[in-house]
Amino acid sequence: MTGFTYYTPTKVLFGRGVEGQAAKEIRAFGGSKVLLHYGGQSAVKSGLIPAIRQQLTDAGLPFVELGGVKPNPRLSLVREGIALCRKEKVDFILAVGGGSVIDSAKAISVGFYMDTDVWDYYENQFQPVKTLPVGTVLTISAAGSEMSSSSVINNDDFTDGDLKKGHSDDLTRPKFALMNPELTFTLPKYQIACGVVDILMHTIERYFTNEKDLTVTDELAEGLMRAVIKEGRVAVENPTNYTAMANIMWAGSLSHNGLTGCGGVQDFASHQIEMELSGMYDVAHGAGLAVIFPAWATYVMDHDVGRFVQFAVNVWGVNPDGKTEKQTAVEGIERCKTYFRSIGMPINLAELGIPNLDRLEELAVKCTFFGKRTIGNFVKLGKEEIMDIYRIAAEQK
Amino acid sequence: MTGFTYYTPTKVLFGRGVEGQAAKEIRAFGGSKVLLHYGGQSAVKSGLIPAIRQQLTDAGLPFVELGGVKPNPRLSLVREGIALCRKEKVDFILAVGGGSVIDSAKAISVGFYMDTDVWDYYENQFQPVKTLPVGTVLTISAAGSEMSSSSVINNDDFTDGDLKKGHSDDLTRPKFALMNPELTFTLPKYQIACGVVDILMHTIERYFTNEKDLTVTDELAEGLMRAVIKEGRVAVENPTNYTAMANIMWAGSLSHNGLTGCGGVQDFASHQIEMELSGMYDVAHGAGLAVIFPAWATYVMDHDVGRFVQFAVNVWGVNPDGKTEKQTAVEGIERCKTYFRSIGMPINLAELGIPNLDRLEELAVKCTFFGKRTIGNFVKLGKEEIMDIYRIAAEQK
Repeated sequence: MTGFTYYTPTKVLFGRGVEGQAAKEIRAFGGSKVLLHYGGQSAVKSGLIPAIRQQLTDAGLPFVELGGVKPNPRLSLVREGIALCRKEKVDFILAVGGGSVIDSAKAISVGFYMDTDVWDYYENQFQPVKTLPVGTVLTISAAGSEMSSSSVINNDDFTDGDLKKGHSDDLTRPKFALMNPELTFTLPKYQIACGVVDILMHTIERYFTNEKDLTVTDELAEGLMRAVIKEGRVAVENPTNYTAMANIMWAGSLSHNGLTGCGGVQDFASHQIEMELSGMYDVAHGAGLAVIFPAWATYVMDHDVGRFVQFAVNVWGVNPDGKTEKQTAVEGIERCKTYFRSIGMPINLAELGIPNLDRLEELAVKCTFFGKRTIGNFVKLGKEEIMDIYRIAAEQK
Repeated sequence: MTGFTYYTPTKVLFGRGVEGQAAKEIRAFGGSKVLLHYGGQSAVKSGLIPAIRQQLTDAGLPFVELGGVKPNPRLSLVREGIALCRKEKVDFILAVGGGSVIDSAKAISVGFYMDTDVWDYYENQFQPVKTLPVGTVLTISAAGSEMSSSSVINNDDFTDGDLKKGHSDDLTRPKFALMNPELTFTLPKYQIACGVVDILMHTIERYFTNEKDLTVTDELAEGLMRAVIKEGRVAVENPTNYTAMANIMWAGSLSHNGLTGCGGVQDFASHQIEMELSGMYDVAHGAGLAVIFPAWATYVMDHDVGRFVQFAVNVWGVNPDGKTEKQTAVEGIERCKTYFRSIGMPINLAELGIPNLDRLEELAVKCTFFGKRTIGNFVKLGKEEIMDIYRIAAEQK
């Protein structure tokens, strides 16, 4: 067990109608002029954005708006947001949406106080000392950005497939998160399933560590994964099931606020390998993870078969009786793939809409920051290993 | 599942040597003049208090001291602390110790800004709007006060057995908690066992709720309990086992920061019934809980046998095959008693050092605030029911 810092100052209000507390919480955290930041027209048409506008107006809280955040949020819109916040003297950002909107808000909140371009933060060239406070109304359970310290932005300056980078800093953790499961009832099933995979992966990326003796953290991680697997099945069948959607929503926050990584060293290789795919091809992050994780697991399993046995038995319910450790471990990965497929996820690159591996080396090169880093901690991976994992991801069934 | 607020802003630094970060964190949270608050001489003799003094001095942080906090911390010392902080213009309290020291610090931090006596807060007659910031160096894993919103104080104005009351407010959550498991290696085994029971009970008091569909929260609660049961066995055998002591320490914080109660309605009847015992007889809180909980469970089991079956199977590993629900539920309670006994805890009032029930009615009357309240939410209990539970606690084996 390593030493660790656990710091999750985000105030969570959870349950039906909590989005009605936005103005009150903005004031409580010192906001007096708000940027209302959101995505496409669905949140406007659903009535959520009009209701928030009305709430802010009724509370006497002046605000300006910036909609149009896309999945895999773009740097160009972040820059626009920074300029708008400066011009309008905004002192609080309210992000209404899912991970993309919240990440975009975090990027604006960092960039607001920077003298240089905000991309420097994602290039790890800038250490923030102050950020604009951010609050959130969550409408998609997936990214966990509502309690996390991280954000991921697509640099659309690159004309030949975007460059997608993430960065973490505790100063970007939102002040509050208003989480009403009913706001997720209208999501398409494919998007719910992508969220389920993303949530599972936030725990899995922490679970595969070389640290031992994590009794508490392992119990929490395995329990969270079992809960998400169980409720994920229900949710994709019936997105208006409050129990399922509520448990998934809460699991989404807990899976990425740091709780499931205490005492371990997180891996996140699957995320980084997937980020190149969604950066270049604009595929859904969760769907990309459903393809990459089993390939990663197959590739690194021999590094610590015992850990994969624990994963198979405690998370996927594999009965190890009469099997070798390796057989049990493999069965765990197979059950994971079967589950992903059962909720409508792709399992290989072709199913993800990437028909060939023409740009395989380019992906792997970008993933190592042009040879400047390895990825992963459970097993450290360089360009060649990453290419091998993409190849498994292309072929697996 | 109910709506809920989850707010745990305490920054946790966990691992060997983290107590050396105290001065840095005090400054980060705005402290410039410190009250160093602690208990008996053991922390002085161990070298911990001298090392903290040196650290503060080296950092140029002026401080005053108030030691002498006793288990079941006394109101009289709290008042002394408030006066000292005002006289010395203290702006930060560093509590070095376990739950009693931290609770005493919280009481001082509330009372500092009150015009009336601090006991009004514990009588629920005062709503704080500001408190002195508190940081902690934890030396006992038990109370969970290092991340919690609650504190419990003994009013020693009462001459005939103290009156012990607890109160909660988010403003009293500590700013930081420095948690080095090695600082707990020198605790007596009895005290470690008391801590294990207290930690288990903080989850159990939330686990027994009438709310359904708590998939995530149940998984987390059951996992935490299994982890504490497992590592508790090791810890009382070998208090210098880092893995055991570290897992117990971390579980102690997570069991009382609110995590295991999200979506449920907490009960806390066993705590309140026990508080009367430790208020009047000054017994160790954890030992009192080991006597009261099985009695409470026996008394209320029929209210929801299914919940006690889940507790028996998922937490205590009872095999339900071929048994009635009630048999399984009873076996769970029996295994819990057996476990408590195996780590050296008492199981009835006589073993706790309370030889008779002469003051039974007085205890029950105090517990209902002289008839002004019922206790518990899983089952609401009045004076007569509380007396029945004390009677079971006297007789059980």
